[in-house]
Amino acid sequence: MLSKEAQEAIAFSRKYIKPDQDKPLTPEIALAARKGGDEGNKWDLPDEIELKTIDQNGVKGEFYGRKDQTPTKTVLLFLHGGAYATGTLYSRRKLAVKLGKAADMDVFACDYTQYPEGRHPDAQNDILRAYKYLRDKYDHVVVFGESAGATLALTLTLQLKDEQQILPDRIAVFSPVINQLNTAASEYLRNERDPMLVGATDPVPYFDEPAKKDPLISPIYGDYRGFPPLLINCGSEEVKYDSSAILNSLCEKAGVDVQWHVWQDLFHVFVLFDMPETDLAIKQIGEFLQMGMSKND
Amino acid sequence: MLSKEAQEAIAFSRKYIKPDQDKPLTPEIALAARKGGDEGNKWDLPDEIELKTIDQNGVKGEFYGRKDQTPTKTVLLFLHGGAYATGTLYSRRKLAVKLGKAADMDVFACDYTQYPEGRHPDAQNDILRAYKYLRDKYDHVVVFGESAGATLALTLTLQLKDEQQILPDRIAVFSPVINQLNTAASEYLRNERDPMLVGATDPVPYFDEPAKKDPLISPIYGDYRGFPPLLINCGSEEVKYDSSAILNSLCEKAGVDVQWHVWQDLFHVFVLFDMPETDLAIKQIGEFLQMGMSKND
Repeated sequence: MLSKEAQEAIAFSRKYIKPDQDKPLTPEIALAARKGGDEGNKWDLPDEIELKTIDQNGVKGEFYGRKDQTPTKTVLLFLHGGAYATGTLYSRRKLAVKLGKAADMDVFACDYTQYPEGRHPDAQNDILRAYKYLRDKYDHVVVFGESAGATLALTLTLQLKDEQQILPDRIAVFSPVINQLNTAASEYLRNERDPMLVGATDPVPYFDEPAKKDPLISPIYGDYRGFPPLLINCGSEEVKYDSSAILNSLCEKAGVDVQWHVWQDLFHVFVLFDMPETDLAIKQIGEFLQMGMSKND
Repeated sequence: MLSKEAQEAIAFSRKYIKPDQDKPLTPEIALAARKGGDEGNKWDLPDEIELKTIDQNGVKGEFYGRKDQTPTKTVLLFLHGGAYATGTLYSRRKLAVKLGKAADMDVFACDYTQYPEGRHPDAQNDILRAYKYLRDKYDHVVVFGESAGATLALTLTLQLKDEQQILPDRIAVFSPVINQLNTAASEYLRNERDPMLVGATDPVPYFDEPAKKDPLISPIYGDYRGFPPLLINCGSEEVKYDSSAILNSLCEKAGVDVQWHVWQDLFHVFVLFDMPETDLAIKQIGEFLQMGMSKND
């Protein structure tokens, strides 16, 4: 049974998100959504966390490390979501820091280019640079991404695989989106059930060719053989549910060490909300990300 | 529980169709498949049926009427499937004639242009001409289509609706395909289950722009408000299952009088096989097609 907090989050969202809404994601809406996301997620960094902002050689983002400690051997590359347009580092800072604490490792939250400032493949290139930067500084790199950030965690790894570079050690995706055309059955059949997202909408404006059969645009077309261990989390009510189901199936058939956790009655990236289910999910993802990694102390 | 005949059909097909096959549909394969389909479906017309071949003013096909009877008031426009490439009138003649008998009406099986002889929208235009020809001769026109023929039954009606012309009175689709991009979850999750079709294949070569957001290419993008009564049949094991699920959902939301019958454990267009389930499906479709029609005698 859902916690009181989860039930309240669903009831609250249902007031504003209606399944027949499908507003085009204009630049104005994108910028307003970023501002709203930041204002709605104010949070003070814990005293023990040290924030270091990076903006050098095309690598932009925030490090969340522990004060008075040497860097950990493993770093978590954190990729926020937001339809390649509406996400911000600040609105996801709490999640990123909590994941780092649960996984017992430093975190780098990548500030990648979104719409309207850029277009595909700007985000991909930004994240690739950040990944290589982290690879030089740490023994291990694990990746977490939610929603569009989950897509980018997959496309990053597919590109690295294609270029025969070292892959992330482990990947955790939350509410992944693997097809830029929103035509999966869950987009229709869960449209009334999903309290957070509208189904069967037009593709996001970040891609000029959303229908292209390109695994770096829609990772449904990816070859997952040789992928690192992957943890998929999603909510049972999501219009994006089929993305998780297909990704899990692709990975199982490719022999990937994949786990898929469907959270009953929950919604897209619920882990952004303060509720007991979030605490449990963060704990589980943290345990998954540090499995098999060398001890950090 | 499945009939012995159905179990045998599944076992037979499993010998030849493997889920990891994905051969490109070349012109040679298309023509060979037509030949094989005809040879594998030899059938003598019943004595009481009169065959009349039509090829005039761009209307091509076969009438199946009853000898010694005046034409019925309603005609069934029959649209075979076969990926817009491999279907033939002859291989579906038994199904067309049996449907006509079950529905108590004349049948016109349209011989529309396929790949490699033509490309979209040739089939659409051929069927539109046939529909108008039948509209002039009969009081009522109902439509049956299987697989790609089901797609064409939908796109025909969407175009008629768009042009504000008289719509078919009733439509029955069997194993419809509503998206030319084969990326639905059922394409992946049912790929090992489906004994007849390979999932997640490339789009059929008949369309130059299979990814285009055009309801006359992929009727998942159609507006179903004002659609005539629709009966959807499919098998539970189909890689095309999600097409039926989405079509049913679209029609329910659009207020269409829609019924969806999922045949447990059965496969894509099983109604082409001789088995008790086929007899029952034909009976039910016949009853649906003649519901509300004026008596034919």
